[in-house]
Amino acid sequence: MSDIQPVLIAGQWKAADASDTFQADNPATKQPLPARYPISNWSDVDAALSAAAEAFTTLSQLPPEKIAAFLVRFAELIEANGDALCEIANAESGLPISPRLKDVELPRTYNQLRAAAAAATERSWKQATIDTKTNIRAYFAPLGPACVFGPNNFPFAFGSASGGDFAAAIAAGNPVIAKANPSCPGTTQLMAKLAFQAIQETDLPPATVQLFYHCSYDDGVKLVSDPRIGATAYTGSRRAGLVLKEAADKHGKPIYLELSSVNPVVILPGALQERGDKLVDEFSGSCLMGAGQFCTNPGLVVVIDNAESQKFVTETAAKFSAAPVGTLLSKNVETGLTVALQTLKEAGAEELAGGAAGAGTGYSHANTLLKVSAAKFLTDPELFQTEAFGNGSLIVVAKDLGESVAVIDSLEGNLTGCVYSDTQGSDDAAYAELEPHLRVKVGRLLNDKMPTGVAVSPAMNHGGPFPATGHPAFTAVGIPAALVRFGMLQCYDNVRAARLPLELQDKNPTGKTWRLIDGTWTTGDVAS
Amino acid sequence: MSDIQPVLIAGQWKAADASDTFQADNPATKQPLPARYPISNWSDVDAALSAAAEAFTTLSQLPPEKIAAFLVRFAELIEANGDALCEIANAESGLPISPRLKDVELPRTYNQLRAAAAAATERSWKQATIDTKTNIRAYFAPLGPACVFGPNNFPFAFGSASGGDFAAAIAAGNPVIAKANPSCPGTTQLMAKLAFQAIQETDLPPATVQLFYHCSYDDGVKLVSDPRIGATAYTGSRRAGLVLKEAADKHGKPIYLELSSVNPVVILPGALQERGDKLVDEFSGSCLMGAGQFCTNPGLVVVIDNAESQKFVTETAAKFSAAPVGTLLSKNVETGLTVALQTLKEAGAEELAGGAAGAGTGYSHANTLLKVSAAKFLTDPELFQTEAFGNGSLIVVAKDLGESVAVIDSLEGNLTGCVYSDTQGSDDAAYAELEPHLRVKVGRLLNDKMPTGVAVSPAMNHGGPFPATGHPAFTAVGIPAALVRFGMLQCYDNVRAARLPLELQDKNPTGKTWRLIDGTWTTGDVAS
Repeated sequence: MSDIQPVLIAGQWKAADASDTFQADNPATKQPLPARYPISNWSDVDAALSAAAEAFTTLSQLPPEKIAAFLVRFAELIEANGDALCEIANAESGLPISPRLKDVELPRTYNQLRAAAAAATERSWKQATIDTKTNIRAYFAPLGPACVFGPNNFPFAFGSASGGDFAAAIAAGNPVIAKANPSCPGTTQLMAKLAFQAIQETDLPPATVQLFYHCSYDDGVKLVSDPRIGATAYTGSRRAGLVLKEAADKHGKPIYLELSSVNPVVILPGALQERGDKLVDEFSGSCLMGAGQFCTNPGLVVVIDNAESQKFVTETAAKFSAAPVGTLLSKNVETGLTVALQTLKEAGAEELAGGAAGAGTGYSHANTLLKVSAAKFLTDPELFQTEAFGNGSLIVVAKDLGESVAVIDSLEGNLTGCVYSDTQGSDDAAYAELEPHLRVKVGRLLNDKMPTGVAVSPAMNHGGPFPATGHPAFTAVGIPAALVRFGMLQCYDNVRAARLPLELQDKNPTGKTWRLIDGTWTTGDVAS
Repeated sequence: MSDIQPVLIAGQWKAADASDTFQADNPATKQPLPARYPISNWSDVDAALSAAAEAFTTLSQLPPEKIAAFLVRFAELIEANGDALCEIANAESGLPISPRLKDVELPRTYNQLRAAAAAATERSWKQATIDTKTNIRAYFAPLGPACVFGPNNFPFAFGSASGGDFAAAIAAGNPVIAKANPSCPGTTQLMAKLAFQAIQETDLPPATVQLFYHCSYDDGVKLVSDPRIGATAYTGSRRAGLVLKEAADKHGKPIYLELSSVNPVVILPGALQERGDKLVDEFSGSCLMGAGQFCTNPGLVVVIDNAESQKFVTETAAKFSAAPVGTLLSKNVETGLTVALQTLKEAGAEELAGGAAGAGTGYSHANTLLKVSAAKFLTDPELFQTEAFGNGSLIVVAKDLGESVAVIDSLEGNLTGCVYSDTQGSDDAAYAELEPHLRVKVGRLLNDKMPTGVAVSPAMNHGGPFPATGHPAFTAVGIPAALVRFGMLQCYDNVRAARLPLELQDKNPTGKTWRLIDGTWTTGDVAS
């Protein structure tokens, strides 16, 4: 068993207590990659939990500047090791090195870590609130060890040991137990190696970052509901996510999920009339980019039946047929997409472009455009909202605006919703009628823009009503807002001044921390 | 059936679709009060849900000033009808009119409504965040109809149709379906009547406030998980609360719970030496006030065994025996307290003061003080944390500080935790050792102060880790923070300026709304 890759537990790269092993595939060749990774037994997970709990206690006593120094050093190491990271991520995900891994996702990842470091140092995410009249003071403090289950569609930027959830949990002051996505164990391992090097160089507790690759379903359930866990962040399939959610909920452990989303796009008639050709390009590009493997991929487009929308549909189908077929991330993604498209077709959607699995290099599926009437959609909205994760999309053709609104009303919660309208005002009345229906269904509402870009902005909401996520008040992207998910509200009532955390003492701890003092946001001190 | 009290649904006081009726008891006489209230069938709940969904759509279009006007008018009506409210609340709860209902709880209630009105108008609770570089903007918007299950221990201030959850949900822009506590249906009805009068006078949608009194367990479960519901706030027994939580969680509906809490108090040796007599009074007063029926009642006291703590225990027991016995809120509370104390005694706690149920007027139980060694406590911490809601408390005697810490480590999540220490510094080392253990277990940490007072302060956290509440990031008391529970994060990406909600437009909507613009909190406009 000596050729099995080690896990990182309690500051040691060591042999796993493994029941079995697995290998990742190269999705472009469908061939297994050489490295073998362990499927850990509970004793590994248990050891990681205990070490994380201990590391949490130590981290809680450290100034945020120490944590920030780690994040900054980790970002440097990622930047310095970009080629190696891209090579293995490309082998494991099939995502192109350029334009994607090297020039988009890698910079996003290290910039995100640097932004998280700045947020940790600034401390404004803690929302320190001071009421001098009652001498009651409150802020968000780190909640406890976080477990991160990352997805495979952003091996760096959402990776378990490097991505947004990781950065947010650490910046908030919590150790992370990274559970690698089994499609990209090598990428996650290399990230964990760099993180661990940064931990050693910046002298954080060794168990601040730990890594295992895989475990049984039952052990995953035990992990997210364990008393030693503070919170869990999960991005992945709805089925597995809901199992984890049920377990975590039952034990009162916060779990932040990103499950699935069809990301409805409504294109109003005036927009099609004004710039239909442009919209064909815009939609096709967004839907087929990266083989459509984005959480915010536009999977459902609503148009109103007329000559322009018929033209839009026909031209989009032609685009889909003509466009190169991308590589899918894994056999599972290929199967999932194939099954989902089949489900939609069996339900009555018409295939305008498409075909079978395997149309491209490696795991793949023909670019697929389906169409269904709104009337048909409304006969079984749940079925027609089946997420086809990948390079497929469903166009819903409504006979009028009222039917479009009915389709929107039938939707589950989604991450995003877009409305395209003309620039001269002819769609304004329709927008006003439709918007309130769409607004309550989505976390992010866009105008005249596809949803696939998710900027790391303080105002971003990469979240939304269930089942897009588990709670509509939190975002997974956006700093500092994403940090709050890994915090608990702690109030100090009549606590003696010297015993207060620095952020709640009269003097502003940095001169730059935003605090709400007697109803006024300020970076100043409490007036003496 | 004409003498059955009406429900308030869709702006009509009307006969319920009832399967049965119930009467509330007067706990001081144990006699049923004359009014009969319906146990609604699903059709009532269903009608309320549909009306609430419609009211929500209308409310969403109204300026917050309209909602504030309603809250202010409702506060006036409560103040004007104080005598009638106190009379019925006294009859239904046994709580004294003075000093309590009239001079404490009633002012708290109308002041809280006025504070909620001010928060609605100011709009800072929405945490509007504007990133001008990306033109992404986000804020908290109302989430949807709220269902409020209030407790019976604060018939006004936490009442389903008048209390903190009610005020927060409405101020955030949501209609409320009030489910009365079956112990105080008449009080809740009178509050709903005043609320409805205020609705009519201020021209809000008629279904902004609705009321029913009781329903089946199954219908409660359906209610909190219904697609038309935004969120639920529940304060009450842990058993019923967990059933509702499971249902709401499964459907991804936020539910904010306040379930139970023993509110540990640690009294360090120096404090006992310095002011032991005072602490006897302070603790006895806090524990027996209102027959101990507070969410934050100090139910568990940890002391270290020595001469002073033995004296503290003996004198406290004498105080408990000598103090008058209060009236409990209901037969259920009497039974619950009796069973809980019996459980603790059977587990091995020694009774230092106490006795049986019925020692006072009406529903009641002798003031009960129990004692157990920390060693014994640690043999079954779960059992010894059984909440004895009412005038009973358990003293845990540790042999040293280490054992005290072990007791703290064994605790579930609680609303509050207190540490008493001497003023000269002799307890400081013990405080420093113990505090990190207690801090992570409680929402509010106090020094030298009993937890029973819950100030309506912007910095209050009336919350805490599970099972005290369902999520450690939210507070049920404190304005504006309590409003956020009834909001969803809504992001606008590239949305045209005129289509943005007022709070996210360049111009500050009130000149007083705090907004985070490009990383700076300001009440100003976006610089043009």
